[in-house]
Amino acid sequence: MPDQSSTTVETLRWRNNRIEMIDQRILPGRIEYPGFDSAAGVAQAIRDMVIRGAPAIGCAAAYGVAVEALRLSTLSQADFARGLDNAFAVLAQSRPTAVNLFWALDRMRKLHANLLGQPVAAVAQRLLEEAHNITAQDITINQKMGGFGAALLPDKSRVLTHCNAGALATAGHGTALGVIRSAVLAGKSLKVFADETRPFLQGARLTAWELLQEKIPVTLITDNMSGHLMSCGEIDVVVVGTDRVAANGDVANKIGTYMVAVLARRHNIPFYVACPLSTIDRSITDGSQIPIEERSDAEVRGYGGIEWAPIGVSIRNPAFDITPAELVTALITENGVVTAPDRQKIAALFAES
Amino acid sequence: MPDQSSTTVETLRWRNNRIEMIDQRILPGRIEYPGFDSAAGVAQAIRDMVIRGAPAIGCAAAYGVAVEALRLSTLSQADFARGLDNAFAVLAQSRPTAVNLFWALDRMRKLHANLLGQPVAAVAQRLLEEAHNITAQDITINQKMGGFGAALLPDKSRVLTHCNAGALATAGHGTALGVIRSAVLAGKSLKVFADETRPFLQGARLTAWELLQEKIPVTLITDNMSGHLMSCGEIDVVVVGTDRVAANGDVANKIGTYMVAVLARRHNIPFYVACPLSTIDRSITDGSQIPIEERSDAEVRGYGGIEWAPIGVSIRNPAFDITPAELVTALITENGVVTAPDRQKIAALFAES
Repeated sequence: MPDQSSTTVETLRWRNNRIEMIDQRILPGRIEYPGFDSAAGVAQAIRDMVIRGAPAIGCAAAYGVAVEALRLSTLSQADFARGLDNAFAVLAQSRPTAVNLFWALDRMRKLHANLLGQPVAAVAQRLLEEAHNITAQDITINQKMGGFGAALLPDKSRVLTHCNAGALATAGHGTALGVIRSAVLAGKSLKVFADETRPFLQGARLTAWELLQEKIPVTLITDNMSGHLMSCGEIDVVVVGTDRVAANGDVANKIGTYMVAVLARRHNIPFYVACPLSTIDRSITDGSQIPIEERSDAEVRGYGGIEWAPIGVSIRNPAFDITPAELVTALITENGVVTAPDRQKIAALFAES
Repeated sequence: MPDQSSTTVETLRWRNNRIEMIDQRILPGRIEYPGFDSAAGVAQAIRDMVIRGAPAIGCAAAYGVAVEALRLSTLSQADFARGLDNAFAVLAQSRPTAVNLFWALDRMRKLHANLLGQPVAAVAQRLLEEAHNITAQDITINQKMGGFGAALLPDKSRVLTHCNAGALATAGHGTALGVIRSAVLAGKSLKVFADETRPFLQGARLTAWELLQEKIPVTLITDNMSGHLMSCGEIDVVVVGTDRVAANGDVANKIGTYMVAVLARRHNIPFYVACPLSTIDRSITDGSQIPIEERSDAEVRGYGGIEWAPIGVSIRNPAFDITPAELVTALITENGVVTAPDRQKIAALFAES
């Protein structure tokens, strides 16, 4: 398991042949690390948002395959292969929007195909190593993105972020918060505004908590306040993460991101998206093809066991929205910054890599 | 006390020489009507948001003066006058943004000045009658606005509203929800989307509840979802209320209104503001002069006794924002609809009245 020393928060950890994940449903009140030793358990954890954030979901899915492989490692080759096929299917059905899930499963599937015929126990070990590799690479990638992105944040700037694209959304360091962390490590003085991000409250519970751990100044606001702060000249720059970027640069991210992007454009505030290449889905031409997950009514009815919505009211709960590429000032990737992203520039990014 | 039969929800009621108000902090879970017999008690109720909504605050303030006058009606003329001066001062300090508060207090103050020298008990009775008049007129005005506004809502349209500008925000019928009610009474089939309106959740707790009482179809969303629904073509029109409109047509309303207005403009969706003349403050030239109340951190930390924000995080809690007149498709008033409001059109509105 890779070193996460650049951040104080540990999202996933390998202990006693199980993948443990910090339970993000109960933060910041309690810190617990439930452990999982089956693909079905990991899939349920992803669905229930024990773990969330596109890159972290990718890592979790890879470990979901690995723990299932270990669990089945005394079976015959045929039964092992059948069991793993099931595991891939179960994990792929956990959440639809973040493409890193499918990216990580593809990587594990290809490795498995390459190892066909080798002893089952050895295959399981190699799959576990691959999950460790994906996780280690995620941190390296985030640190590279952080370096590129830090240069975009002026000293003393006031940075708005939405949802949590931090260490908790990744294997460590974070994407959007990784950019902020890297800028602070480079000596810049920043002030962060965190949207609370209803209904799951990732901004209030995760982003604010993460930044407090590292003494990066953070101010919590509700999701309907950022426009007012922009109009008062209190926001200099926006940095967010993403769950999937289409080939033309359209960005799927946590519900509310689009509203922030529209407001940022109105106020001529740069709107940056921190985006590892694994989050770019070149198989789809634009954002209209990205599936938007609709989650349970219960999330909107209240929070933490309290319900404030009246009984019987209809509810909508789309978990993501699409920000068109024209509103994106730049994508920040591990291969560099793509200003005013479009189809050609995104294709070029992959040609270089 | 006026008849409120056009709506099923009673906001204020006069019982046993006290002004009773439905406690809007505990709706929709419980329906309670605490009673108040002093100006200080009413001021505290306004500050604590037992009652809220600009027109309702105006009515409550008028009753605050009336109950204080009754309470002091055995005093000498000099002591009575001194006591009432205090009452006006205490009530004026309850909340800063909604101008109806100051409008109602001015009206009560002028009446009191006209009655100087008359027997104290008779003055107190006249002040109570005036509070009843203000309340009755508020309902009449809302019904007039409703009639004008209903014509603007196409049959089968999907209407977004923010916060609660309903019967609960007024003496009855409502401003924005009054427009919706009048359209439904006129036979139109509407579907309402209600922003939950963090942090006080007026949309979830009050608007959704009010509309459910009257079987008007309503769907609850979080504040960060309306942009996504607009981009999906699921919103046809926006109607909101207001706490103060400047002489140039700039609109102060519940935090988040500005973001909705910007998104509505981007999607060519009409943005209407239901606005009794008592909410227009001709003494100020534009929205930059409207004081924006910042409320307690505790409201943002959580809700209903649950805190989800991490301990020690900074918080901002502006309760209102300013929507510039250029984003307002029309003001809906009791004197008619003012399309593309500006200084001249608003002045003309008062010249006619």
